[in-house]
Amino acid sequence: MEHRPLVTLLTDFGLQDPFVGIMKGVILGLCPEATLVDLCHETAAYDVVGGSFLLQSAVRFFPAGTIHVAVVDPGVGGPRRPILAHIDDQFYVAPDNGLLSYPMSSGAVRAIRAIVAREYLLQPVSATFHGRDVFAPVAGHLACGVPPDRFGPEVTDAVRLAVPRPRVDSFGRLTGQVVWIDHFGNCITSITRQDLERFATSLNRSIHVMLEGRPLGGIVEYFGEVGVGDRGAAIGSTGHLELFSSQGNLARQWGIVSGASVSLEAAGRPTAECS
Amino acid sequence: MEHRPLVTLLTDFGLQDPFVGIMKGVILGLCPEATLVDLCHETAAYDVVGGSFLLQSAVRFFPAGTIHVAVVDPGVGGPRRPILAHIDDQFYVAPDNGLLSYPMSSGAVRAIRAIVAREYLLQPVSATFHGRDVFAPVAGHLACGVPPDRFGPEVTDAVRLAVPRPRVDSFGRLTGQVVWIDHFGNCITSITRQDLERFATSLNRSIHVMLEGRPLGGIVEYFGEVGVGDRGAAIGSTGHLELFSSQGNLARQWGIVSGASVSLEAAGRPTAECS
Amino acid sequence: MEHRPLVTLLTDFGLQDPFVGIMKGVILGLCPEATLVDLCHETAAYDVVGGSFLLQSAVRFFPAGTIHVAVVDPGVGGPRRPILAHIDDQFYVAPDNGLLSYPMSSGAVRAIRAIVAREYLLQPVSATFHGRDVFAPVAGHLACGVPPDRFGPEVTDAVRLAVPRPRVDSFGRLTGQVVWIDHFGNCITSITRQDLERFATSLNRSIHVMLEGRPLGGIVEYFGEVGVGDRGAAIGSTGHLELFSSQGNLARQWGIVSGASVSLEAAGRPTAECS
Repeated sequence: MEHRPLVTLLTDFGLQDPFVGIMKGVILGLCPEATLVDLCHETAAYDVVGGSFLLQSAVRFFPAGTIHVAVVDPGVGGPRRPILAHIDDQFYVAPDNGLLSYPMSSGAVRAIRAIVAREYLLQPVSATFHGRDVFAPVAGHLACGVPPDRFGPEVTDAVRLAVPRPRVDSFGRLTGQVVWIDHFGNCITSITRQDLERFATSLNRSIHVMLEGRPLGGIVEYFGEVGVGDRGAAIGSTGHLELFSSQGNLARQWGIVSGASVSLEAAGRPTAECS
Repeated sequence: MEHRPLVTLLTDFGLQDPFVGIMKGVILGLCPEATLVDLCHETAAYDVVGGSFLLQSAVRFFPAGTIHVAVVDPGVGGPRRPILAHIDDQFYVAPDNGLLSYPMSSGAVRAIRAIVAREYLLQPVSATFHGRDVFAPVAGHLACGVPPDRFGPEVTDAVRLAVPRPRVDSFGRLTGQVVWIDHFGNCITSITRQDLERFATSLNRSIHVMLEGRPLGGIVEYFGEVGVGDRGAAIGSTGHLELFSSQGNLARQWGIVSGASVSLEAAGRPTAECS
Repeated sequence: MEHRPLVTLLTDFGLQDPFVGIMKGVILGLCPEATLVDLCHETAAYDVVGGSFLLQSAVRFFPAGTIHVAVVDPGVGGPRRPILAHIDDQFYVAPDNGLLSYPMSSGAVRAIRAIVAREYLLQPVSATFHGRDVFAPVAGHLACGVPPDRFGPEVTDAVRLAVPRPRVDSFGRLTGQVVWIDHFGNCITSITRQDLERFATSLNRSIHVMLEGRPLGGIVEYFGEVGVGDRGAAIGSTGHLELFSSQGNLARQWGIVSGASVSLEAAGRPTAECS
């Protein structure tokens, strides 16, 4: 644990209500020396997989020992467990509903514990706001030095949702999907730099990108390489292929939502549509 | 006052402008060791009673000695006074326009002072941004140890607006109103757990909830108890009865706004409409 | 540099994504004792001049030695340089695209340096997120005591965009434009208190304000001086003339956008339209 503990928060609570502020009050009441950082709170309400991707895109930029409190929790109050996970050198406090699927799929899972120790929760625990009554106080106690094993026993059956991965189809196209649409309308895909290098190296040809069956253009190094309003694709800051309209909003222009299909094909190679 | 002072901010300034950031600059310039927490800044512009409810829902989760700066202030620049209130173990810096009505109505008011000491304000005081020129510097000085009585004399005529309270009507129904609609479209009502227990115990029957005259369903323990898309009511995290659509947005679905009528009736009991 | 360094962030990243949180992770990883303050992150995407105005309106309320990280950066990944500027007693880390035009135009520029020292950047530097890979780590190192001259050589050709200034037209009217529309729909203009005093003193008559050719009313001291829903103008908290609808949203009511024309004329003086 750091000398000055760092706690991040990612929720789908939005910022119009005091929910996030209340969680911070609880954490700082238990651990006044904590430094708090908001990751984001506008995750589409109830979108567990999307929240998991956002979490994963952020955590590697935080120092070892950071505690990430993640609450996208449509099952709040029901039987789903709260968990405390230690993955790589980071800690996570979250509902056991798949919200940690991305970190679990790419990191070294050191321990996942069910949170059962009632003495570290706010009493009485409400049925609708475990961010305040469960996740925030656990983070506060953890930040102030309570060892992870005090919160509950290790479990091996934490929920892991399928993380979308691209595949090469029977026409030789690399097909994936949009996993996140950012503030600028850029469409971040399930296709990583590694996927692309494997695909492109084997073909050694230039690549055409299709979004929902519409041709989008080629792959460039940075957004400004294409003219203002033109479209293209680039490896974005998450290490994933990202589709964009230069200084425009691609998602709005084309009505793209999360889950939209993306395919890449090598130039000059006949495809099903044109053969 | 805490060793490491905690200051919260609740305004209707939104986050698109640097108004809140500027207030933080003023506070940290006076008290660099302060920890700042945003409660919320998207309170409906100029909605003093709504802001007061949000404030009240948050303050009990903050440690003793926390200073809450609250600015929903349609009368800025006019004759309304700035005040410094000590209620229970918390401090408040706010315009004297009723914004502290909820905390005053439920807490122990220890002292309310008119802020008159010009040496603790930013000079010149603008006519349009007292958050920056009055409330932030007073909070900064208070956080760094200036005693409350240095800011001005006690007053006994601070503005208290009527806090909506439910009542039992002539048909035996418990009637209240929606006081706050949250990010998820949940409708928080003026009916508290205590109100409900008093009403339900006397009748000892199950309860039907009506929202704007439309039947909404019964009262459950937690949101996930009803099917996705189904509607219901539950005691929410504020301790108030909360109407919801499971994983949906009730306020948007039914066009509900703050002030909408809510009524509860005991099952099987004839009402005016059906007698 | 302060004992407890203060770093602010102004971007056009919005808050729905974890971009800003990631920048904070990078800064706190390098400088755990830094205090971070959000100025705003909802600047119209890619609006460099607007972002510059917001920055200027905020910085004078921060203590000496504050580091302002400003990222409105449509040219990210392209040839534009990152710079580190020392203006008055504040530091700025920003792209060299005119984002510092307002601070440069009104403050004492002590030094502007091109950031070239790769050892202070996150490696590899992505092509799309210099906020994370360039500006945040430079701010983190600077906050923790790396001297400014270590980041790169002084430059004298930093980009300065034209800052809109009002002028007196051939009919004797003071004409300017809307430079910023705030959360309340107030329209902040390019006309400062000084411009107005110079204009008004020479004429010594009362002033009529026109917005996009429509009469708006006169100049008052504070918003509440006119009736609810009435319109007027006042010197706002930035020291600029600000047009408003009392407790309403002027920009929405009249469809005003940034750049809209504003003109002031002395009462009783014939103008082109009515002579």
